[in-house]
Amino acid sequence: MVNPVLPSSGVLSPLGLDAVRVPAGFWGDRIALNREATIPHCLEWQEREGWIGNFRGERPRRGREFSDSETYKLLEGMAWAGHPALPELAATVASAQEGDGYLNTRWAGNRYTDFEWGHELYCYGHLIQAGVARLRAHGEDQLTEVVRRAADHVCRRFMDTTETCGHPVVEMALVELYRATGVERYLEMARRFVERRGRPALADIPFGRAYFQDEVPVRQAQVLRGHAVRALYLASGVVDVAVETGDQELLKAVESQWERAVARRTHLTGGMGSRHADESFGEDYELPPDRAYNETCASIASIMLAHRLLLATGDVRYADVAERTLYNMLATGVALDGRSFFYVNPLQVRVAALPFEGVNHAAEGGLRSRWFDVSCCPNNIARTLASLPAYLATSDEGGVQIHHYTPSEITHGPLALRVETGYPWSGMVAVRVLSGGSGRISLRVPAWAAGATLSYAPAEAPTSSPRPEGGTPTRAVDPGYAVVEGDWLPGDVITLELPMAPRWTYPDRRVDALRGSVAVERGPLVYCAESVADEVPLSEVAARVSRPPSDVAPSGADPVVGVELTAALGRPHSNGWPYGPDPDPAGGADHTLRLVPYHRWGNRGPATMRVWLPIAE
Amino acid sequence: MVNPVLPSSGVLSPLGLDAVRVPAGFWGDRIALNREATIPHCLEWQEREGWIGNFRGERPRRGREFSDSETYKLLEGMAWAGHPALPELAATVASAQEGDGYLNTRWAGNRYTDFEWGHELYCYGHLIQAGVARLRAHGEDQLTEVVRRAADHVCRRFMDTTETCGHPVVEMALVELYRATGVERYLEMARRFVERRGRPALADIPFGRAYFQDEVPVRQAQVLRGHAVRALYLASGVVDVAVETGDQELLKAVESQWERAVARRTHLTGGMGSRHADESFGEDYELPPDRAYNETCASIASIMLAHRLLLATGDVRYADVAERTLYNMLATGVALDGRSFFYVNPLQVRVAALPFEGVNHAAEGGLRSRWFDVSCCPNNIARTLASLPAYLATSDEGGVQIHHYTPSEITHGPLALRVETGYPWSGMVAVRVLSGGSGRISLRVPAWAAGATLSYAPAEAPTSSPRPEGGTPTRAVDPGYAVVEGDWLPGDVITLELPMAPRWTYPDRRVDALRGSVAVERGPLVYCAESVADEVPLSEVAARVSRPPSDVAPSGADPVVGVELTAALGRPHSNGWPYGPDPDPAGGADHTLRLVPYHRWGNRGPATMRVWLPIAE
Repeated sequence: MVNPVLPSSGVLSPLGLDAVRVPAGFWGDRIALNREATIPHCLEWQEREGWIGNFRGERPRRGREFSDSETYKLLEGMAWAGHPALPELAATVASAQEGDGYLNTRWAGNRYTDFEWGHELYCYGHLIQAGVARLRAHGEDQLTEVVRRAADHVCRRFMDTTETCGHPVVEMALVELYRATGVERYLEMARRFVERRGRPALADIPFGRAYFQDEVPVRQAQVLRGHAVRALYLASGVVDVAVETGDQELLKAVESQWERAVARRTHLTGGMGSRHADESFGEDYELPPDRAYNETCASIASIMLAHRLLLATGDVRYADVAERTLYNMLATGVALDGRSFFYVNPLQVRVAALPFEGVNHAAEGGLRSRWFDVSCCPNNIARTLASLPAYLATSDEGGVQIHHYTPSEITHGPLALRVETGYPWSGMVAVRVLSGGSGRISLRVPAWAAGATLSYAPAEAPTSSPRPEGGTPTRAVDPGYAVVEGDWLPGDVITLELPMAPRWTYPDRRVDALRGSVAVERGPLVYCAESVADEVPLSEVAARVSRPPSDVAPSGADPVVGVELTAALGRPHSNGWPYGPDPDPAGGADHTLRLVPYHRWGNRGPATMRVWLPIAE
Repeated sequence: MVNPVLPSSGVLSPLGLDAVRVPAGFWGDRIALNREATIPHCLEWQEREGWIGNFRGERPRRGREFSDSETYKLLEGMAWAGHPALPELAATVASAQEGDGYLNTRWAGNRYTDFEWGHELYCYGHLIQAGVARLRAHGEDQLTEVVRRAADHVCRRFMDTTETCGHPVVEMALVELYRATGVERYLEMARRFVERRGRPALADIPFGRAYFQDEVPVRQAQVLRGHAVRALYLASGVVDVAVETGDQELLKAVESQWERAVARRTHLTGGMGSRHADESFGEDYELPPDRAYNETCASIASIMLAHRLLLATGDVRYADVAERTLYNMLATGVALDGRSFFYVNPLQVRVAALPFEGVNHAAEGGLRSRWFDVSCCPNNIARTLASLPAYLATSDEGGVQIHHYTPSEITHGPLALRVETGYPWSGMVAVRVLSGGSGRISLRVPAWAAGATLSYAPAEAPTSSPRPEGGTPTRAVDPGYAVVEGDWLPGDVITLELPMAPRWTYPDRRVDALRGSVAVERGPLVYCAESVADEVPLSEVAARVSRPPSDVAPSGADPVVGVELTAALGRPHSNGWPYGPDPDPAGGADHTLRLVPYHRWGNRGPATMRVWLPIAE
């Protein structure tokens, strides 16, 4: 049961790294790249920037006040990946731990003097998550010992206070440590951290207490708000507490907060967080494409939250949002070389970035960076890709559910399945039975996949035992879960076909920043116009929606399916004042405009980019 | 010559507070309110917050590192207004000055250790501007002595270094002190501060050096960029240096930077600055209505810059932009009671603010605040309104130019004129000759005023001396300056009639955030829909542009002319995901929607607001 999230109850149970293998394909290639390139890259840069040296006591201390947490995120990734350098790094971390379990390279000697910005409990949270990963993937060792001592210190220090941390994450970490160890005080500590928030527990700040979800108790909040990563980490921990304590009211509160956030505060890519100033959600329908913040870490946190809600409820909506976020945010956050990263993920970039090799201090810019002063995103990507197989499939008493399609092998009891697919480029998904067993096999039909079909080909002639209904004929399946039930024999194949024609997507009329625009999606992927070296003036492009967009076949070894559409290409005009008495509609001569998957943009050098295209008159 | 800006050369010469009286009307009432309410309010709050106490050596020191500058801005306002408490406040300031002229309550003992953020030269700049005001409005006294010593200290300390300040303003202050005193080293110091910028002179910061206009020398910059107030203060100082040194290249550089900023980086209200994170301009066509920053101080700085460029070139474009900014930004920055203020000025507010009486720490929110942690805006408003008459009219060898219409009396040599008008509510402007003289009288016809007419009514029958051409018949005049020339007799009346019907205004197609929307303007005023207590759901309103907007007559004593239009009022619908396969056009049942002038919004309690309205299908 090698899993980052392992609830003791819930509608669905996750299948872990020991049950799901992802050897190749869209995600398998990325998981391998993460192991071969990203994890070593993060190790190298953390050493270079002195963040690991901080644990060795090297002075002056380097990095931001929360840099310890980056080492812990990386340790978690190394634990899932079975990286051989883990014991050495864990020993370095252990060397900085004090006798009572306290561990922080920034605040040692000055403990717990700044709950708003100090990030001490936040650092413990990531440390504990690393320990849980190690415990489940490997077993007890020095790292897990460090983690138990740290967690015990936290419980002793905070169990009976009213304090909490400006940056949540310790909540979900403590619940998971409880799940992994059975020690109930960890759950109780997490529960108390959740409940004391919003009483309020923290000082007011210029951004307001909503920044760290402390303006109102979590049960009373109507929507995810404030700093997006904080909000999503907290909500994940709240789900964990609710599930383990059987607190349905608390679970419902997060469900409705998530529902409104998804309906009104989420970008087409699944990205969350519209504001740069405080990295916050912004208001309902405040979804600017150009200034979308969409921190990569917020998308990872969104995947974590959706996964927890899926396990708790079995509701397909959570898997739909997770898929969107996986393909359009997580996959965008890291370059094809695995060694550079986006921190913010806007949906429009008007000015091509300047090439840049060093540390990105602003965490912005239209080219992925090798490293950031605040490098949560690279290390968060590392740990997420290392554990990604645990997010793909689940089980319940009746059988197995496959939520995300990528070449993989899934084992559940006697049943072994192989998913064969070119997804997300192709919509054909074959699930081949390798080793038989009985029960339901549920395949997710995404919300966008109206017109999907399912067929079933038995390995041999029917035996006396009942075979799955559905038989050979192809049948239409609605969005949700397509379920096939029966006794499975090796060689049985279920085939799901998802319609993959590129499609126009329009915004809700209340999204002011997108009015009069249209985007193109294909399968789970959002596409974008990218102009490398400014070859196409994207400020002048407008989509002719009367003709549908169409596929551009992959070329060479690259499996990427492009999209093309007819675009009117206007001419720049020069006005002394950008407002006037007459409408200024987009339009011009017709050109063919090629789009690329959003997650692929920014891999060919400095470029401008836009997801939303004005509609030509 | 009581003027904040008094160039030694240029196409136009400003008429000062000694030549222009503004006793009543739109601006006269505000000038009186500023004197009676705003200046005392600022004095009271600066005392309450301890910023004045800092000069008395009260400890701990209070306020931000640049709080001295707020006292200086207020002193400038008090100097223009002839406020009786000025000598006492000046004496308090003087008590903190050191023997060598150094004066700063934050950095004394630790001088000049942080040029990026320390604001020491910025504080001197505002101090010097206060001193120039005092010198011109009153004559030498303790304040002007403090200022000369401070300025001499600055020249000694910085004349031969490569240093400059992260926040410009000292440049224009030093030029003005040179103009007021004739001491040439002040001009030379200003020139050097301008020229050393962008070499670079300052350290890099996460926002990038463009934040403080230090990424490129000012002569090479293509556009106003970075922090808006910094950019506009710097540009004002550059114009001053260029004018006094006869540097045409430098003047041209600022003209073209202004031109592109106005064409691509300016909101309909004249507001500048699209980004919250670094209070910066943002990119070309990045003009979000909801997240427009539009700091009140940036609008004041924009008026200062436009005024300087108008004086240097005589080009009406500068007066047009100044008028827009005066009526829609400066007038918006302060409440009708003169005691609360906007710091940021968005063009759309989706969520009504909570009522609030204390210090606004975030400098945001949809209700004006009594005070801010950073209270540049209230004090900047105070000094600007106190000197506003000096921005209305100019002279040249041939006569007088009236750029802004408000009830006023203007004297130039033997000629005395009285402007009689209900502008901006009425478009009728009568210029009555009170005391005769010869020469041209030029009246600005704003760019929006196509269809304006001019007529002339002589006081009596023509005499032997030639009377102004044009005579009695009404003639059409084009945007620009309408000129009437001749020998004037008391009782002569020139009447300009500007067409004031409300009009639709559409955005340039490249302004992505405004696509599919329309605004309403009337005369120089931008209008907005305001929904107090959320009586009209502004997220659901859409304008029917087939029927023109129309006037709503003033009611009671309030001269405000409202506007009404036909709006489709949709129904909120609930989608789980704000994107879909079909367009979601605005529309619904017709309602009459009343608009108010933008500068009036937020005076009736918590409200939502929007300038740009979606266009109904």
